[in-house]
Amino acid sequence: MKLWQKNTSSKQEVEQFTIGRDPEFDILLAPFDVLGSLAHAQMLESIGLLTRSELEILQKGLKEIWMEIEAGTFRIEEGVEDVHSQVEFLLTQRYGDVGKKLHSGRSRNDQVLVDLKLYYRHRIREIVLLTKKLFNQLIDLAEKHQHDLMPGYTHTQLAMPSSFGLWFSGLAESLVEDTMLLKAAYSLANQNPLGSAAGYGSSFPLNRSLTTQLLGFEDLHYNVINAQNSRGKSEKFIAFGVAALAGTLNRLSDDIIQFMNPHFGFVVFPDELTTGSSIMPHKKNPDVFELLRAKTNQLQSSPQVILMQLTNMTTGYHRDLQLLKETVFPDLEKISECIEMTVFMLDNIRVKKDILKDPFYSYLFSVEEVNKLVLAGMPFRDAYKKIGLDIEAGEFNPATEVLHTHEGSIGNLCLDQIKEKMSRALESFSFGEIDSSQTNLLK
Amino acid sequence: MKLWQKNTSSKQEVEQFTIGRDPEFDILLAPFDVLGSLAHAQMLESIGLLTRSELEILQKGLKEIWMEIEAGTFRIEEGVEDVHSQVEFLLTQRYGDVGKKLHSGRSRNDQVLVDLKLYYRHRIREIVLLTKKLFNQLIDLAEKHQHDLMPGYTHTQLAMPSSFGLWFSGLAESLVEDTMLLKAAYSLANQNPLGSAAGYGSSFPLNRSLTTQLLGFEDLHYNVINAQNSRGKSEKFIAFGVAALAGTLNRLSDDIIQFMNPHFGFVVFPDELTTGSSIMPHKKNPDVFELLRAKTNQLQSSPQVILMQLTNMTTGYHRDLQLLKETVFPDLEKISECIEMTVFMLDNIRVKKDILKDPFYSYLFSVEEVNKLVLAGMPFRDAYKKIGLDIEAGEFNPATEVLHTHEGSIGNLCLDQIKEKMSRALESFSFGEIDSSQTNLLK
Amino acid sequence: MKLWQKNTSSKQEVEQFTIGRDPEFDILLAPFDVLGSLAHAQMLESIGLLTRSELEILQKGLKEIWMEIEAGTFRIEEGVEDVHSQVEFLLTQRYGDVGKKLHSGRSRNDQVLVDLKLYYRHRIREIVLLTKKLFNQLIDLAEKHQHDLMPGYTHTQLAMPSSFGLWFSGLAESLVEDTMLLKAAYSLANQNPLGSAAGYGSSFPLNRSLTTQLLGFEDLHYNVINAQNSRGKSEKFIAFGVAALAGTLNRLSDDIIQFMNPHFGFVVFPDELTTGSSIMPHKKNPDVFELLRAKTNQLQSSPQVILMQLTNMTTGYHRDLQLLKETVFPDLEKISECIEMTVFMLDNIRVKKDILKDPFYSYLFSVEEVNKLVLAGMPFRDAYKKIGLDIEAGEFNPATEVLHTHEGSIGNLCLDQIKEKMSRALESFSFGEIDSSQTNLLK
Amino acid sequence: MKLWQKNTSSKQEVEQFTIGRDPEFDILLAPFDVLGSLAHAQMLESIGLLTRSELEILQKGLKEIWMEIEAGTFRIEEGVEDVHSQVEFLLTQRYGDVGKKLHSGRSRNDQVLVDLKLYYRHRIREIVLLTKKLFNQLIDLAEKHQHDLMPGYTHTQLAMPSSFGLWFSGLAESLVEDTMLLKAAYSLANQNPLGSAAGYGSSFPLNRSLTTQLLGFEDLHYNVINAQNSRGKSEKFIAFGVAALAGTLNRLSDDIIQFMNPHFGFVVFPDELTTGSSIMPHKKNPDVFELLRAKTNQLQSSPQVILMQLTNMTTGYHRDLQLLKETVFPDLEKISECIEMTVFMLDNIRVKKDILKDPFYSYLFSVEEVNKLVLAGMPFRDAYKKIGLDIEAGEFNPATEVLHTHEGSIGNLCLDQIKEKMSRALESFSFGEIDSSQTNLLK
Repeated sequence: MKLWQKNTSSKQEVEQFTIGRDPEFDILLAPFDVLGSLAHAQMLESIGLLTRSELEILQKGLKEIWMEIEAGTFRIEEGVEDVHSQVEFLLTQRYGDVGKKLHSGRSRNDQVLVDLKLYYRHRIREIVLLTKKLFNQLIDLAEKHQHDLMPGYTHTQLAMPSSFGLWFSGLAESLVEDTMLLKAAYSLANQNPLGSAAGYGSSFPLNRSLTTQLLGFEDLHYNVINAQNSRGKSEKFIAFGVAALAGTLNRLSDDIIQFMNPHFGFVVFPDELTTGSSIMPHKKNPDVFELLRAKTNQLQSSPQVILMQLTNMTTGYHRDLQLLKETVFPDLEKISECIEMTVFMLDNIRVKKDILKDPFYSYLFSVEEVNKLVLAGMPFRDAYKKIGLDIEAGEFNPATEVLHTHEGSIGNLCLDQIKEKMSRALESFSFGEIDSSQTNLLK
Repeated sequence: MKLWQKNTSSKQEVEQFTIGRDPEFDILLAPFDVLGSLAHAQMLESIGLLTRSELEILQKGLKEIWMEIEAGTFRIEEGVEDVHSQVEFLLTQRYGDVGKKLHSGRSRNDQVLVDLKLYYRHRIREIVLLTKKLFNQLIDLAEKHQHDLMPGYTHTQLAMPSSFGLWFSGLAESLVEDTMLLKAAYSLANQNPLGSAAGYGSSFPLNRSLTTQLLGFEDLHYNVINAQNSRGKSEKFIAFGVAALAGTLNRLSDDIIQFMNPHFGFVVFPDELTTGSSIMPHKKNPDVFELLRAKTNQLQSSPQVILMQLTNMTTGYHRDLQLLKETVFPDLEKISECIEMTVFMLDNIRVKKDILKDPFYSYLFSVEEVNKLVLAGMPFRDAYKKIGLDIEAGEFNPATEVLHTHEGSIGNLCLDQIKEKMSRALESFSFGEIDSSQTNLLK
Repeated sequence: MKLWQKNTSSKQEVEQFTIGRDPEFDILLAPFDVLGSLAHAQMLESIGLLTRSELEILQKGLKEIWMEIEAGTFRIEEGVEDVHSQVEFLLTQRYGDVGKKLHSGRSRNDQVLVDLKLYYRHRIREIVLLTKKLFNQLIDLAEKHQHDLMPGYTHTQLAMPSSFGLWFSGLAESLVEDTMLLKAAYSLANQNPLGSAAGYGSSFPLNRSLTTQLLGFEDLHYNVINAQNSRGKSEKFIAFGVAALAGTLNRLSDDIIQFMNPHFGFVVFPDELTTGSSIMPHKKNPDVFELLRAKTNQLQSSPQVILMQLTNMTTGYHRDLQLLKETVFPDLEKISECIEMTVFMLDNIRVKKDILKDPFYSYLFSVEEVNKLVLAGMPFRDAYKKIGLDIEAGEFNPATEVLHTHEGSIGNLCLDQIKEKMSRALESFSFGEIDSSQTNLLK
Repeated sequence: MKLWQKNTSSKQEVEQFTIGRDPEFDILLAPFDVLGSLAHAQMLESIGLLTRSELEILQKGLKEIWMEIEAGTFRIEEGVEDVHSQVEFLLTQRYGDVGKKLHSGRSRNDQVLVDLKLYYRHRIREIVLLTKKLFNQLIDLAEKHQHDLMPGYTHTQLAMPSSFGLWFSGLAESLVEDTMLLKAAYSLANQNPLGSAAGYGSSFPLNRSLTTQLLGFEDLHYNVINAQNSRGKSEKFIAFGVAALAGTLNRLSDDIIQFMNPHFGFVVFPDELTTGSSIMPHKKNPDVFELLRAKTNQLQSSPQVILMQLTNMTTGYHRDLQLLKETVFPDLEKISECIEMTVFMLDNIRVKKDILKDPFYSYLFSVEEVNKLVLAGMPFRDAYKKIGLDIEAGEFNPATEVLHTHEGSIGNLCLDQIKEKMSRALESFSFGEIDSSQTNLLK
């Protein structure tokens, strides 16, 4: 069954070792393999390598497989090496030798590459849309809690007044920036590698611009060596983007774990979303956020895991690249799961009111008092010294209201501007191309 | 001299430990500190916290300091804590109490943040322009060597014909993609943090949009917590972008080290650019490329170095952030140096002609021969089998010309399209804003 | 069923998220949970917290479970949280309330800790024994190929004569050093944490020295906080040790991939252990070694994955620690698989004879010729210069025999001394304790 | 001046690039270069390659240089490539051609290797002795504060009573384990590489056992390829060991930063060892511990930085290895500095008394109360349920004394046993060999 078999039988140990976890990953690539083949077939016909009727047979066969994938009945049969062989096998079994013609002008290398690009493009869209969902939730929470003050810390010491509105919307704006990094990963995934064959191009008169347009790619990887070298690089860019998102979720988790600590007690979650202890009956543990913290640390490690496998390697395909799937495929799942779990938890967050009324927090207002003196005309350094002496003398009795008015401050969160920023970021993706190209290929 | 001194004298050990390498980094921030102060002063006047004449004095004083920096005479004096204190000290020494007023409405935190953003913006521009220089060189080399064939490898085995034109321009297109990632770092550096104070905003009626416009920032970090949390995040995004560039240079170095290996012998450099051995008189070692490989590995490790320092940290400034400079500042230097050294070496590269004329390479043409049979009508799988049998039987005598015509192939490098891609990438940066804002502030 | 349930029902989403992959890992801990419980029960009886007859019932029940585990019939039932609960559940179901008494004086935390320590100890032994197997094979290959010369490279340039004997035994000696690092991991795993409870000890008058002796531990983690903090640290030390081994295998793989490159052609493997190409009939690809290279890179990344999850964390158990299993458990499998696959491949390696007879390699002998002149009385620097001039003038015609006699050189491999070194390293582990303690607990 | 110059002049750019930071590192190697040369010379004489009187001249010359190094007057002159060339240059300048004879039978590669091994051995000893100093301090603090109770946390939630005695001595025991990992690094550094020449041995009849004994090495790197491949591997093992130590200091810093947080307030440092804020007069910031945290994170990243430079590399020296010094040399300094700063700070720590008297902490005693019921005969699960219900009903009024008696618990810290553990760890190093070999060589 193996395409590259040379009348010798590979030892089973070697087969097992080399195939690894590919079957479980390959099944995820199946729909994208069909899309890539539809575009490739149409291009082959346009340059005379398939007749019109051969193309129509292949299109019929591929659309049937697409529907089997959608229906969940498609599977990679025992003894068939990979998803690409399975698709070709089904076509040939059902429609004869025309099935074999589909491989003309491409190599398994660029076939895998195009499948991966289409898959990554699809998954990045999902992640970006989940990010938007979390973003919207954070903006809503910021609006709801804009008047709920809390302490702001620097050096883990009490510093100045902050608010839940500020905290929630700060996380939201951070997501906008993460999205900007994901955009670079999306753009790299959105370059057409088809036609690069094994990484050095082909003597067939392929029309690569046509497949670019059919598959809704933003552009070509023009250079075929660069197309091949993008294997690994796509994964690296994704890992960077996912690590950025994970960084924001890690921060959110750290903050909440601290806020749930009984010394702070700033937020509460329903009992059924925390866990107890087998030995300490009073505990309400933030397990979900601890696991989010751990998972986001795993995700933040992935750039290095990938870089280790890519570095110090010469140009051209190496089998090493196959194993990057073991990092990236689960990571795409994991980041989605982390965002969804964060949304789920934040749906249930309860925020403590009037935290800053406690005199424990009065020093938070020292800067406010310094500033009042400055606004009344005292030079900053002198005002700073006076308040410092008041504090040391125990004579510091500040007002506890906060009147911040500038852009992005407690009293002026600029939620509309942040939303606008996110909209611009999302528009830059042009996700519509994915759907319209798919519709056209399958119609 | 320390701004935060409270009539107690810190032990010298602690001072030494906490200041660390800051003085050597701070001097690089000096011009940007002046620009940030010019914008801040102008804004303070616009909201009535400085009088018109106070502003004019401060502008005069700051421009003097700018010129001293340009002239190389500016330095941070013994006992002065940092560049910000030095600037304020000079202003106060020369013009009296008005110098102290400059600190109104800002904290050292947002002052450092704005300095860093301006500095990073400036350095990323430099790196992108160096990248463009290398890109142009690679395109020129590709054009010059478009007819010089070489072997293409997969699995480190001889695979198919390639060419130096293909190899050089593949690296060039890779640089375009790296530039796209640097764009995300640039955009994050190009958000105005001024007005975030210590990370929780200020009770002064600051006009943050005005400083955004004056400093030529693309946008505000609206949310002040997010502005503060961008410390570290800017460095992370830069590390990602630099790691991408480093990845391309690492690949280039690996390839050249292999090409210089006597078993290959594809490229040669002048004797004075290689090194010999103390014990083996015949050696011509590729030390420069080995060091480029090592340096690009250091650069590719930096994301992890930074992430380790950022993870599992709650919101708000932590002193830990200071030490990120120890990674990012030298890295910005190192990546520039690596690009420049690559350009220098490639200026001297000599490519071996007619490599593929050697019968050692005849198997490279097996795919070509398979394809010829396919184009003549034989199904691919049958053609593949026939050529395989010919090779096993020792009857494989291929023609050694290469006729690839599709986009991005040996015969059709699409250099114009790749150049166009780079132009679009470069335009997206809007570097002009840097110069025009600087000109306006200093005029 | 959950031990810590407080009459509220956790949302299913949260349960799924928090349990994660634990069930698949927990089943591996089952035998060690039984051993730990046997020791704990015996200790409880010794301090009067179990009667003699209660102990006997528990021992009977635990040994039954041990046999079910051995027979492969043990499983964690639906709705039972973890392996510890399953064991307790079975005991209680079968023998009544005495089953509940087993948890006295311990917490789930130290129960998990002791299970993990015993499991790690067991797996490290396996890995060390596999390492020894590979070591022996490499020594045998070195002996067999001690007269087969090959080139030695520096800077990837031809440098001096080497031999397969030297190369094989060099890898063998490297394994000895890796074993020394694994010893540190083994020693850390070999400290008894039982009695640390949730990390702060217990008010029960536990006899921790007794369980230390019963379980064959080398020593106690005396301090209970340190015992708890060893969670994560054990995994870190293992990751270091495994990374060292992986580094040696990575080197071996890189070398072989190069040796299999047709430009070199130093070693050959049977066709059935290499793979071909779907498009290039002549290829014999080193896929197994490429995948070994990739896997060893994954393993070398694991220290960082673990460190990211451990850093910046305060003392005491955090749920984050659970996820370390997702790295370490598969890694212990992976390194074993990598060693076994290496052994399998080396069983089939064929080495090319008389490589250095090819005049292509004559420069390798330049140092030999320099040394001959030195031994004949010429100062080194002058001899070096003379040979250099001979080479430049094309008058260099060296003898191609190699007469190295010092310790560890081509002619004197010191295989016995290297074997002796390995024996000392292996003896330091005292693996016998594992078996004798197990035999005693189960008798 | 360059030994490998071939009558062509290298471009200055290349020289600058390739030398890098070596001069600043080389000066640290100078004394070890002298020791290595003394041993090499003595061995050369023993095999007849130096006459007795030549040896005496060289010994005289080398001891003079040793004294110049000690006196601080030794320096690497302008135009001299490295420390090895400088030593040879001085000998030749002062004593004529005999100086050139010293290079017989070795290459720069094994000369650098032996210098590095001796240097690393020396620095690891320093670090271990500093670790012992910190260990002793922690044990003393544990003894002093054995009755000062504090809360113990799990999941960052209040869990059970702990004590400062327990916390301090837990850190102490952790240092013992770190020392065990450093031992593996020390052993690897303590293998003699001299005689491996450029990594493939030498045709000289060297007596490597003699130099092993003269330099006080524990053993030989027998195999010369393995000796060369230990370059990089030594650095990797050191990075692992240093990362382990850094992990313990990171934990200590995290804990203290939390203890200094005003919500906790468990420890206090004198004002002069904390820092204030330019804008918040009341702050007492834990800057030293934040910087310790950041530095220990840098140190914990170094394994990855090194692994990236080592992976996917074939056997034999590569110039890349030179750059590892840029990581390891500063790290050896940094870890020493971190330990010293920790000792300095702990000398000044003040611990709050009677923390647990505050009713805020009463839940900490829930396990104690459960255990009392168990010791009185109630099954654990029932006792657990009863206390849980008491807590929910607000009827939980525990006694606040802690009576833990088992090994390693609050009431039985086992400081003597932990000290004994450290003594055994220290003895395993046999540091005495360093001094006696040095004394013999220089006498």
